[in-house]
This record gives sequence, structure tokens and C-alpha cells, in this order.
Amino acid sequence: RETTETGDPVLPLILGQAVTWHSAFILTRTGDRIAIVGKYEDEAVASSGAWTTIVPYVQGIREPLLDTLNELAPQKIAVNYSQDDVKADGLSAGMWMLLQEYLQGTPHVDRLISASEIIRALRSRKTATEVQRMRDAIAVTDELFAMFIERVHEGMSETDIARFFHDEVDHRGLDTAWERSHCPIVTTGPHSMIGHGLPSADLAVTRGNIVHLDFGVRMNGYCSDIQRGWYLPKGNEAVPPDELRRGVETVVQAITAAAEVMKPGVPCWQVDAAARQTVLDAGYPEYQHATGHNVGRAAHDGGGTIGPRWPRYGRTPEYPIEVGNVYTLELGIDNLAGHGYFGLEEMVHVTDTGIEWLTQRQTDLPMLG
Amino acid sequence: RETTETGDPVLPLILGQAVTWHSAFILTRTGDRIAIVGKYEDEAVASSGAWTTIVPYVQGIREPLLDTLNELAPQKIAVNYSQDDVKADGLSAGMWMLLQEYLQGTPHVDRLISASEIIRALRSRKTATEVQRMRDAIAVTDELFAMFIERVHEGMSETDIARFFHDEVDHRGLDTAWERSHCPIVTTGPHSMIGHGLPSADLAVTRGNIVHLDFGVRMNGYCSDIQRGWYLPKGNEAVPPDELRRGVETVVQAITAAAEVMKPGVPCWQVDAAARQTVLDAGYPEYQHATGHNVGRAAHDGGGTIGPRWPRYGRTPEYPIEVGNVYTLELGIDNLAGHGYFGLEEMVHVTDTGIEWLTQRQTDLPMLG
Repeated sequence: RETTETGDPVLPLILGQAVTWHSAFILTRTGDRIAIVGKYEDEAVASSGAWTTIVPYVQGIREPLLDTLNELAPQKIAVNYSQDDVKADGLSAGMWMLLQEYLQGTPHVDRLISASEIIRALRSRKTATEVQRMRDAIAVTDELFAMFIERVHEGMSETDIARFFHDEVDHRGLDTAWERSHCPIVTTGPHSMIGHGLPSADLAVTRGNIVHLDFGVRMNGYCSDIQRGWYLPKGNEAVPPDELRRGVETVVQAITAAAEVMKPGVPCWQVDAAARQTVLDAGYPEYQHATGHNVGRAAHDGGGTIGPRWPRYGRTPEYPIEVGNVYTLELGIDNLAGHGYFGLEEMVHVTDTGIEWLTQRQTDLPMLG
Repeated sequence: RETTETGDPVLPLILGQAVTWHSAFILTRTGDRIAIVGKYEDEAVASSGAWTTIVPYVQGIREPLLDTLNELAPQKIAVNYSQDDVKADGLSAGMWMLLQEYLQGTPHVDRLISASEIIRALRSRKTATEVQRMRDAIAVTDELFAMFIERVHEGMSETDIARFFHDEVDHRGLDTAWERSHCPIVTTGPHSMIGHGLPSADLAVTRGNIVHLDFGVRMNGYCSDIQRGWYLPKGNEAVPPDELRRGVETVVQAITAAAEVMKPGVPCWQVDAAARQTVLDAGYPEYQHATGHNVGRAAHDGGGTIGPRWPRYGRTPEYPIEVGNVYTLELGIDNLAGHGYFGLEEMVHVTDTGIEWLTQRQTDLPMLG
């Protein structure tokens, strides 16, 4: 109900429009596709042609819902909730309570299970078209990074950098891949917020420090999510300082290590562990976030998490890598040798035997002019 | 968590930004404002200056959440879920289960109640600034209706009409008040979808029929939601047919009847009943929806429903009208005398003693040129 503001991430996968009142969309193993919706929305839902049966109601959904379930007599009823996968957790707490109330005293109430596995399969195994859309979003992102490199200069503030990207996104009629307020995430040296921080008007690009961006666009409904970093030399430096180059090399090697163990069937946490261990072995502090997430309609697209088995990620690090998944591989080092945050984020597509890179990898630390 | 796609309608009222990981925002009776958030989001949340305590965590929220609750020792913990009020129902089912799991074995689990009443007070009692923003949105909507009247002509399709409004909204840098696909809702005669239907490319304005629109804009974060109807005469008609004028009069009178009983303390369903009875008394079929809803940040802004006590609306028709509420009053007659749907929707602001009209009421059936 009222899915415009309280969005259910499952709905766009099966409906493609918003609904206002209590609504049930029932897909059965034998191919029935039944929509039970409030009167005044039945015609709009029917117009898609996707539903074999439309049941409109006036006063309340309980009766048509029970009638339908009694007729179908399902052994299991998989519902759009999940403790682990945020993109399979579209049902609200109030609606869950109401559903249980409506089914009370019927055999159906004990048949409710999470639809998480079905939704994950539908959402995380990308089709060729979905992968192509992400390639297109990546191409635009690369183009904007290239434009940015031409324009960035000493003294350019973080908010000015963010504005450059917003203007280009608007100009192309695109959206940022996540909330505009922190897309791009901009860090310009040792004093910037890291992680999901906001660009500051008081911090600017300075010589002898790293400029780092975490940015993506949404184009034709699909996202990119990429991190890149550069160095603005000071004095007459011909190359970045050694201690910086060693850090960059470690980040690159850690991402390579993750990619090398990444193949169908491997649990996500093992991919994370390969990258994490590389950083620790090099003597850098452990990054305190996951190494990767699915990308798709959303920048954080639910499903598995290439992360450590921390409670924060629920059971998602246990999920296996699957053919067709598109993941980020991302990590960084905070305040690398005192020059600010350096991190990289690449995007990979899982094949039958391993991965293919969707992004053109960054493997060194380019100098800005 | 991940509030960008699965939006929690409560969050913009207290935070104003999105969060990615499990997060708890705790407001106490004594004025503590405690944010427990994943590391990498703590600085962005802190930067608002709105929180007295920020607790970042790395591995999981359970421990800092329990520590905080143990220290506060609350008698009741009001949580953002509601079976009735959609705008107070931001917690997902999975997060509700997880919260119960985390609190299991502590006294806190039995102290959880719905925060519905607090959220309703915060959201539904509009400030003067909020009301002014809606007045501004209404002024733009009126302007677009006036432009539309100048442009509409026989043969103009429903999709062309929708496109006119979308172009004007885009041109002004505004948003539609609800999903663009059916904002405006357009009906051009007896064959159109009514209710939340989609404009059709195959249906067009015809002589001797009603043109009806349900439309609103979102401007500075606040919405308008207005229905208007007109008549395109056929032959040399100087006024609309009598049977149409009688229907229009009934709709106008029913809205007046609702407004007359509307004052603080009256339960919403009584306001609905006054309008509904007027339509039935005039011999027209009962409209099968509520007579009004709150408007604000969303076109359907939660809180009370001026509707009959049907299960579809939960307990929201029992809620009292309160000072500062902004409601629609809306109803119509399907296929009025065979000329198509006619309905009106006005917006009212509840004062100490009754209501003031925010919209300039439509009281007759204007003829199009």
C-alpha cells in the first residue's frame, strides 16, 4: 500500500507501477498471476496485461485474499520480507502484522516463509540487457571522470566538485546512483569525512594530497558505482611519494586477490577475506566495511554481500556468488601516509568460470596537472 | 537501513538524509537525541548538529543499542510501525523481526508500542510555513489549469493532456504530486478509466462530454491535490444539459456538507458520512472511496482518513480532526448522465472553529471554448 513514498523494492520487478491501497500480487508455481487490488486501481493494473486474474475489492482485502488462498491451497506462501536482504524486505511491519491478523485461524498463517531466495534469484542474476545498461552507465561515469580531471585545480572546494558532477548529470537528464547529497562522495585530503560523508565547502584540493571520488549514475534504470583517486603534486615532484605508491599498489593487489577467488558457488565472505588479508599482510589497518555489494537498479542492489561475517550484514556474506551477478570490489586506506583517503572501486560480472571486469581498472595513482 | 529505495516516511521528519546500515534514532522525553549508526555514516549524521549523542558501530548494532536502552531504562519504546497509518509504518517486517530478536530476553521487548500517535501529531498538525507551501503549490496548480483551458480542444488525447502538464511541471523545475504515470489522472468521457487510471492515447476530448482532471504538484517539498471538471458543448448548446448541472450541484453540495461538520475533535468518519449521505439523498450511486485524506509532504500524507469505517482504511476514520490538519474533500459521480466522470477535489485547513478553504472552490460546470 502507498508504495510511492514507502517504496517496496520487489514491486518494480513484478508490477512497474505504484499502488495505493492494500494489494496482493500472487504468483503460483503453475503460472497463475493474480492481482488483488483496491477498486479504482484495478483498471490501471489490468492494463499491463501481465496478470491472469484481477480481483478488485471495495471495503477490505481480507475476504478476497482468503478466498484466493483457499482456492489455491498453497503449501508455502513466500512473502516479501527478509531479515538479511534489504531488497527482499519490502513489506512493512504494520502490513506484516495485518497479514497475520487476516490469516489467523486459517492454515495459511503457518505457511508463511520469506521470499528472499526467489527475489534474490530474480534480482541478482542479471540478464544480458541489464549488464549492458550497466556498461552504458559506466561509460558515462568514465567520461565524467575524464572531464573532471581536465577541470580540477588547487583550491577547488569539495562542494564545487560535487556541483560539477551534478550539473553534468542534470545536463544529460540522468540521476545520481544514490542520494545526491553524497553522490559523489568527495575527499580532498586528511581532513575530509570518509565513507558516506558530505562534501564540505570549507575543504578544497591541496597540493601534496589525494583527491578521491566515489560516484555513479543511474541511466535507463541501472547504476554504476566507481571509486577513483588522483594525486596533485607539490613542488616539482615528478611522481607521487613512494609511501603513497605502495599504498595504491596494495589496494590494487587486494582487489585482484578478491577477483581471483571469485567464481560461482564460492561464499561471498571468502572473496572478502582474500582482499582483507592482502591489506593486513601489507601492514595497513583493516578497512571496516564490506569489500563488495551487488549493483543493478540500485547502487546497493541487495542479495549477497562480499563482506566479513559481521551481524551488520546478516546472513548475506554466506550467500554464494552466482553466474550473472554484478558486484563491486572496493576498499581503501584511510589517510594514506597522511595524504588523505585512497580507495578504489571496480565493477565485475560473474561468468561461468570467474569474472569479467566491467570497469577499466585503475592500477596506479595518476598525477593531476 | 538502505532508506534510499525502501523509504521510511518518518525519517525525513527527524533526519533529512538517508542511511545505509541498521540505524536507530532515539528521542527521549527528557530531550536526549541519540543516533546509533554504522561507522562511515556517523560524521554525516553528526554534521546536522541535531543529535546530542552519536554512537558509531562497526560490526553490529545490537550491542550499542542494548547498552543505550539499558542506560535509558524506558517504560515504553514507541517504534515506527503502524497497522493503520501508512506514514507511521516505516519499519520493514524484516527489521521488526530483527529488533525483536535483538531485544529477546531483555525487559525492552515487552515495552515496544507503535509510535503512530506521536508521528501523526508531528506530521498532520501543519505549521504556518507548511500551509503556506501548500498555498503556493495550489497557486501553481490553478495557473496550469488556466493554461490548460486555453489549450484544450476537441480531439486532444488523454496522453497529450498529460504531456502538457508534465512539460509545464518540468519547465518550472517541479515534480508531480504523485507518480507521474497517473498524475494528472485524465478522463475525457464515458470510456475512460476512473480512479487511479492511466491516460490513454486512444481516448480524446469529444463534444458533449466532460473533461476531468485530478492533478497536483510538489513544490518546496509540499503538495497540492485538486480535481476539476469542464464541459465541451456540442451543437449550439449555450449551457450544459440540465442532468449534468444537477450532478455537479450535488457534488458541490456534498463537499459543502462535509466542510460544515468538519471541526477539531470530530471523528473523520462523521465528515465522510455527511458528504456520502448528500450524494445518496440525491439519488446518485455511492462513491466507493474515502471523501478525504491529509495532504502535506505527500499527496496522501497519512494520519486520519475522512472515510467510511471500511477495513481498507484501518482505524484511520476513527481519528479526530485536529487544528492544523490539511485535508482534501473529494468525491464524484461515475459516468454522470452518460457524459463521463465528474468529480471535484478541494483542499481545506482546519482552524480552531472549523475550516478555511485553501483552494478557490469550483461551484459549477464551466464550458470549454
